[in-house]
Amino acid sequence: MKIKLVIFDVNQTMFSLSEIERLFRINKLKKELVEVWFSSVLKEGFAYSLSGQYIDFFNIGINELKKIFLQNKKPFTEKLIDNIMKGFENLNVHSDIKQSLKLLKKKKIKVVTLTNGSDENTRKLLKSNGIDKYVERCFSINKIRLWKPHKEVYLTTCKRMKIKKENTLMVAVHGWDVNGAKLAGLKTAFISRYEKMLSEFYMPPDLNAENCYEIVKKL
Amino acid sequence: MKIKLVIFDVNQTMFSLSEIERLFRINKLKKELVEVWFSSVLKEGFAYSLSGQYIDFFNIGINELKKIFLQNKKPFTEKLIDNIMKGFENLNVHSDIKQSLKLLKKKKIKVVTLTNGSDENTRKLLKSNGIDKYVERCFSINKIRLWKPHKEVYLTTCKRMKIKKENTLMVAVHGWDVNGAKLAGLKTAFISRYEKMLSEFYMPPDLNAENCYEIVKKL
Repeated sequence: MKIKLVIFDVNQTMFSLSEIERLFRINKLKKELVEVWFSSVLKEGFAYSLSGQYIDFFNIGINELKKIFLQNKKPFTEKLIDNIMKGFENLNVHSDIKQSLKLLKKKKIKVVTLTNGSDENTRKLLKSNGIDKYVERCFSINKIRLWKPHKEVYLTTCKRMKIKKENTLMVAVHGWDVNGAKLAGLKTAFISRYEKMLSEFYMPPDLNAENCYEIVKKL
Repeated sequence: MKIKLVIFDVNQTMFSLSEIERLFRINKLKKELVEVWFSSVLKEGFAYSLSGQYIDFFNIGINELKKIFLQNKKPFTEKLIDNIMKGFENLNVHSDIKQSLKLLKKKKIKVVTLTNGSDENTRKLLKSNGIDKYVERCFSINKIRLWKPHKEVYLTTCKRMKIKKENTLMVAVHGWDVNGAKLAGLKTAFISRYEKMLSEFYMPPDLNAENCYEIVKKL
């Protein structure tokens, strides 16, 4: 396995959502609801793509957040919704990711990001966390207008980087992301710190560890 | 709008998940986690379909339930997982649905169900709730091997019932389901009792009310 390019998923994989949990708590929403929210945003994004249409993460995020307030009988204003959405600009990088990026640079392996969110926001996060120098390019689904895990998203990223899919490693904490990349023909690494296990029906990843540094050490 | 056929979504739309909440509480899992679980099952099902493969609701349900236990640091056994999954055989019908089915029979409008779950389990639920006499047939995605809201699922159901899509009404509490049916060319009704609002970017449904009876009265 000769890896020349590592593609990182962004939300939850590189950056923690603990800032969003803080904003939920301030607004008297239970911490568990962050999980409900994030999962719902993905669910609606996948569903919309499956029904043959495209809508961006941010737009779904706003609507799903309003539903959370309504379902939990908490008042909200447009300004409050905006403030919570802005939390996505202030996420902190996971420590194992920072370490991993440094090691990848030493190993001269290229690094890019690929998100169902916004590439522009990813750039902001990389900069504010002081890790922009480790990442060559930021990709998003917003050009191809199909949500991961549709295989075209992974294949297009490899093409744009002019690196063969067999020499590319997709790294994520989400089983569906790792499985989608594997089905598209990429090499894959599953970080288990978040989901804890991979569903039995998913294709086994090439690498698998509790944290990303353990994965990168093996490259 | 001449409706000759009403297609009901099953989980949450016809049947309450309160039995699942009870089973979660018995096993010291917070009630909110039912929402996390159900939403994750849909998310993974949509994702898998989007990546070009098919897996059934039950299989995803088992795997996502194990993740919930692991993520919340609660011990589990295979027997315990089985017991909770069996909860789906014991769901109770929402009162507005029971009323609606009676009225639809009076109006001589045909009724079928269409679920991302199992058609066999739907039949069991209809029978144990004493409402099987109101439903002509039960459909599931398990033949077509594509998850709703892919348009083929809705169109195939209309074809099998030999009723035009323009004369068919899809009824659901999920925005993504109602939107998918609308994109496929069916008429749609959104019951808002569960999600409280419809995302702005979804196509407006033909009918919309807090409970199903209000919708059926208008047919």
